[in-house]
Amino acid sequence: MPSNGPKSPAKPAQDGAGNGTKPRRRDLEVLNVAAQIFYERGYASATVQDVADALGMLKGSLYYYIDSKEDLLYRLIAVIHDEVDALLALLSAEEQLSPIERLELYARRVVEYNAKNLTRISVYYHDIDQLTDPRRKELLSRRRVHERYVADLIREAQADGDVASDLDPKLLSNCVFGTIIWMYRWYKPGGEFSVEELSDTATRFVRSGLSVPPTRAGQP
Amino acid sequence: MPSNGPKSPAKPAQDGAGNGTKPRRRDLEVLNVAAQIFYERGYASATVQDVADALGMLKGSLYYYIDSKEDLLYRLIAVIHDEVDALLALLSAEEQLSPIERLELYARRVVEYNAKNLTRISVYYHDIDQLTDPRRKELLSRRRVHERYVADLIREAQADGDVASDLDPKLLSNCVFGTIIWMYRWYKPGGEFSVEELSDTATRFVRSGLSVPPTRAGQP
Repeated sequence: MPSNGPKSPAKPAQDGAGNGTKPRRRDLEVLNVAAQIFYERGYASATVQDVADALGMLKGSLYYYIDSKEDLLYRLIAVIHDEVDALLALLSAEEQLSPIERLELYARRVVEYNAKNLTRISVYYHDIDQLTDPRRKELLSRRRVHERYVADLIREAQADGDVASDLDPKLLSNCVFGTIIWMYRWYKPGGEFSVEELSDTATRFVRSGLSVPPTRAGQP
Repeated sequence: MPSNGPKSPAKPAQDGAGNGTKPRRRDLEVLNVAAQIFYERGYASATVQDVADALGMLKGSLYYYIDSKEDLLYRLIAVIHDEVDALLALLSAEEQLSPIERLELYARRVVEYNAKNLTRISVYYHDIDQLTDPRRKELLSRRRVHERYVADLIREAQADGDVASDLDPKLLSNCVFGTIIWMYRWYKPGGEFSVEELSDTATRFVRSGLSVPPTRAGQP
């Protein structure tokens, strides 16, 4: 995955979430296994011992990578932010796209990402509030940077006349987030729908949803 | 609230979830307080004693209403289904509405309902999987009836030419659910946006999102 370039509007709000460097491969394996354990047993019930067992490691060896169970949760969520920030940096690099086209590509890329990372995304949304401050605040601050990026794109698309200007960009951005995030609650990989069908439908729904007519014609 | 008429497509899939009768006022108070406690402390950590304390009751008296903590969770979720089924019955009674108009009104009513019941809705989505079978299965079966109602309306709107017929109704219905449910994660009553602004924007986004053009014109 390309590095997060200087043009990215989604630069982490605070340093240190990913320690500024990519996690090593073994670290990622630890975080993926932790996500699976948290997903299956619930973060509250899961133990560091469970994660060590699933990795085939001694608990003492796992503590070489992490300081606590919360550390695992924090780092797996921080890595999601690192990866999604990299997606946003790629979008920003697509200079030929108009704001509405960028929003459409944003929806497609995030749905694809979420569909391929369902377990981690489920843990993110189910358990982020189990983190204690200042870590929880740091990650919510990174989320706000992401949210502002999308609301700003909507504002630009409104200036272009592509999105109704009488609707609040923040409210609209939350409609977009709902459409592209909710799938983690019901989508089954390898089931009824391919990732492509899913992302295609969600992307078209978002594009069309944002192209809402400025008047309320047809409303009951 | 009007009774759930015979025309309702959202008749409970199984008997007994609400015991076929409306819960008494004191029961509702118990369930609302339980929702608040589960929301604040987490269902896993909360105790029946916490709920009794918040109600100013002896724990023994609370056991007059319920058999267990899980009973509280089950009943508060079943009541949400009862209430939303009543909303669907009202929608079905609006015979003058076309399918797409009914979908629009559906989105508006559900967003309003969710905005006014944020605590209960949060507990619903965060904790439904903590229920054990057969209760969990029973409620998921009721949810599927609700989901089919929406997918069927989308299918009818496709037959009318109001929704692109090349998109799967189930995928589209999940885009709608995301838009109208996700607000429980971020909406603050009494904050930046009124319930009316929220429901107005979500409703227009859903109506416009469903009116997706049949071709992929404009896609990057």
